[in-house]
Amino acid sequence: MNFPEISNLKTTLQQRRQKLAQQFPDKALLWSGCAPSRNFPANTFPFRASSHFLYFAGLSLENAVIELDNGKLTLFMDNPSAEMILWAGEQPTRQEIAATIGADAAYPLSELENYHAPAATIALPHPAIYQQQCQCLQREIPQPWQAQGKDLALIHAIINLRLCHDNSAIAQIRQAAEVSMQAHKAGMEATQPGKTEAEIRAAMEQVIMAHDQSCAYGSVVTVHGEVLHNHDYSHTLQENDLVLADVGAESPGGFASDITRTWPVNGEFSPTQREIYDLVLSAHDACIEAVAPGAEFQDIHWKAATILTEGLVDLGILQGNVSNLVAQDAHAIFFPHGVGHLLGLDVHDMEDLGDLAGYAPGRTRSNRFGLGNLRLDRALQTGMAVTIEPGFYQVPALLERAKTQEPYQDMINWNQLAQFSDVRGIRIEDDVMVTSDGAETLTTSVPCQREQIEQLCQSG
Amino acid sequence: MNFPEISNLKTTLQQRRQKLAQQFPDKALLWSGCAPSRNFPANTFPFRASSHFLYFAGLSLENAVIELDNGKLTLFMDNPSAEMILWAGEQPTRQEIAATIGADAAYPLSELENYHAPAATIALPHPAIYQQQCQCLQREIPQPWQAQGKDLALIHAIINLRLCHDNSAIAQIRQAAEVSMQAHKAGMEATQPGKTEAEIRAAMEQVIMAHDQSCAYGSVVTVHGEVLHNHDYSHTLQENDLVLADVGAESPGGFASDITRTWPVNGEFSPTQREIYDLVLSAHDACIEAVAPGAEFQDIHWKAATILTEGLVDLGILQGNVSNLVAQDAHAIFFPHGVGHLLGLDVHDMEDLGDLAGYAPGRTRSNRFGLGNLRLDRALQTGMAVTIEPGFYQVPALLERAKTQEPYQDMINWNQLAQFSDVRGIRIEDDVMVTSDGAETLTTSVPCQREQIEQLCQSG
Repeated sequence: MNFPEISNLKTTLQQRRQKLAQQFPDKALLWSGCAPSRNFPANTFPFRASSHFLYFAGLSLENAVIELDNGKLTLFMDNPSAEMILWAGEQPTRQEIAATIGADAAYPLSELENYHAPAATIALPHPAIYQQQCQCLQREIPQPWQAQGKDLALIHAIINLRLCHDNSAIAQIRQAAEVSMQAHKAGMEATQPGKTEAEIRAAMEQVIMAHDQSCAYGSVVTVHGEVLHNHDYSHTLQENDLVLADVGAESPGGFASDITRTWPVNGEFSPTQREIYDLVLSAHDACIEAVAPGAEFQDIHWKAATILTEGLVDLGILQGNVSNLVAQDAHAIFFPHGVGHLLGLDVHDMEDLGDLAGYAPGRTRSNRFGLGNLRLDRALQTGMAVTIEPGFYQVPALLERAKTQEPYQDMINWNQLAQFSDVRGIRIEDDVMVTSDGAETLTTSVPCQREQIEQLCQSG
Repeated sequence: MNFPEISNLKTTLQQRRQKLAQQFPDKALLWSGCAPSRNFPANTFPFRASSHFLYFAGLSLENAVIELDNGKLTLFMDNPSAEMILWAGEQPTRQEIAATIGADAAYPLSELENYHAPAATIALPHPAIYQQQCQCLQREIPQPWQAQGKDLALIHAIINLRLCHDNSAIAQIRQAAEVSMQAHKAGMEATQPGKTEAEIRAAMEQVIMAHDQSCAYGSVVTVHGEVLHNHDYSHTLQENDLVLADVGAESPGGFASDITRTWPVNGEFSPTQREIYDLVLSAHDACIEAVAPGAEFQDIHWKAATILTEGLVDLGILQGNVSNLVAQDAHAIFFPHGVGHLLGLDVHDMEDLGDLAGYAPGRTRSNRFGLGNLRLDRALQTGMAVTIEPGFYQVPALLERAKTQEPYQDMINWNQLAQFSDVRGIRIEDDVMVTSDGAETLTTSVPCQREQIEQLCQSG
């Protein structure tokens, strides 16, 4: 087993620990977790450490625990067994790992049995690990979104750190974005009528695998873009379909990228597809333009909603006054999700904490149609990474409901909408870093301009 | 979400239920399980139903339970929520699924709260599901390998069914094998000095993904074949390396294939690689030849051990009398695993039951070096599918131990062995059906003859 080479890992980790100590000087214990099995114990999914652990330990170590104590790092993990060396090869020892990550001390896991310090922690979803946590700390550990006292203080301190990425994290997100962009280009080039969604997905994920990276989430590669998290790849691409691909790699150190592009199967957008595509793109561009330190992410969401509504009114699909339509959430019929989310070690960064990271203290999720799916409601800060991903979808269930429901039924010109039946779903999603003077889009080398996309599709 | 089309599914499932009823007419409840999450709930691994559930329900339904009662099938699952339809698309309803699988009745999951029948069951590894099982049946459910009473009776009845595959299962294993063979050919063709293991893996898994199949287990694609379950893909292929690839697809209905091939990076085996390759191949061929109804699988394991030992004596690597060497497990230094295992809905079929399926009643695992890793010790029966996978490995940890350990240190001619340093690991693995008149190898269209492999490697 080889760990990825991450430059300045020890220094980076030391700085993270010191920053944590400034906000939370007390003891914290973080568990890495273990690989979930697939029907029988020897057949596991690939292991990926809990992101909080990974942020401070740097390496995805299975069955390990770290203590953070006022800037000091103690590693608890067992040395590889002879059995493990036979099946999984030579492994670095606990001492070697401790040296790599700059741990101040390192002990076998059994030492945790004598660990009686009143440390804070964050509950992991894997129930076996959760049991270990409760046993070790001799108390019932609340789910992260219900945490109180020192656990909540630890969570808030970690959120403050992980919200704004350091240079090492930014380099990792760039690394993932670079490979994801290549995957999207490969997808466009591989697309042809008669191929299947599965073949396009394979062409894209092959690029990620060939770079020895993994997918940060289950890929969406579909001609049914109206299904937001579609993990079905069974359809054959038809001449007039659009392919919507939401595919992102995870860097060797565990950071995510998240890119969506939508392109025409036959290499050319139809006039109706062109209209909607350009509308979504204009919302996308305006929202990225609005990303800057201090900007409220919810305002950016409403900007997308407003631009999409204006455009749909111009196209005769929505009818009425734009402000009224937006106020009544008419846009959400076609754009039912949020305009973006945090990006970091998780593709929806820190979503294991419920909305504690995504929503600023004192704010809670709305239950308004559309807005209820917004995962981020904070003022942006330099160093944050977010996605910007407006979209347009014709979701049968939402349209059917709107057809018979006030106030929506009269807001839509149903005959006009019928002209756009070849636009089932379009999303354009990029990864954007908030910088001191505005924003930097990390994912620009895969085109989102129509003409460039058509060129790539036709070059395949 | 679309379910795979499986011909005669309803009839197949009905026959399986009736066969179960003959051996176990009482009530049984089987849970499908749920997808494990990757750090936060919305980011899950792909769902795959528990194999026992899948065998009788035919479809990989998440969060579902079936009752089998004297040939009758009752399905418990919830209809898709509006939220689920938005994110995951239109889903078949409970009634539609019930019709597809021929269920006699279908209820929402809440009905399980009133389920007070003393049904037998099999514990699932996912702890949340395990809790549901205990709650529903109002008792502590033992782990499968510790089952007693009706649970054990159910397990034995299911083992008897699943051990010998019906036509539907055989067709599915063939389907998986077909795609796996294409993947191996693609791997050979993609291999070149200077490429990485990750690139070869990507070329192979792309084939599986493009067929809308998944991997039945984590792929091994490595120049360090001596690491038996190596999941590291970071090495660059060197001119004189061998690539060992253990990659198998899972059919749409969930059946596994499991193929290993070993090929030369530069397209030509060296003289030493050729000697060892042909030796492993001769063991492989002889073992497949020995597969037949009534044959004891352990005898086939010893056949591999004996042939390998004879060959290593001929090559001057082992020294001494072949029978004595085998009796003292000298072969296990170079061949530390079993010659094969059951294949079916799991790649190590029914290994969730410990050794209950792999070992005939009354037999238990040996703790002898080598033999302790044999996963199957039964008389073969028509309809069983097994792997045959002899190998030769130079595992540093085993060789170092042998160097200083009686009786091994004198059995090896260490100078002669040093000549074979370019053979780190070779395994040749095929999937074999036991038929009424002997055996059929399902995986013959990916070559294992040296000349044919060299030809494929050179055609890339």
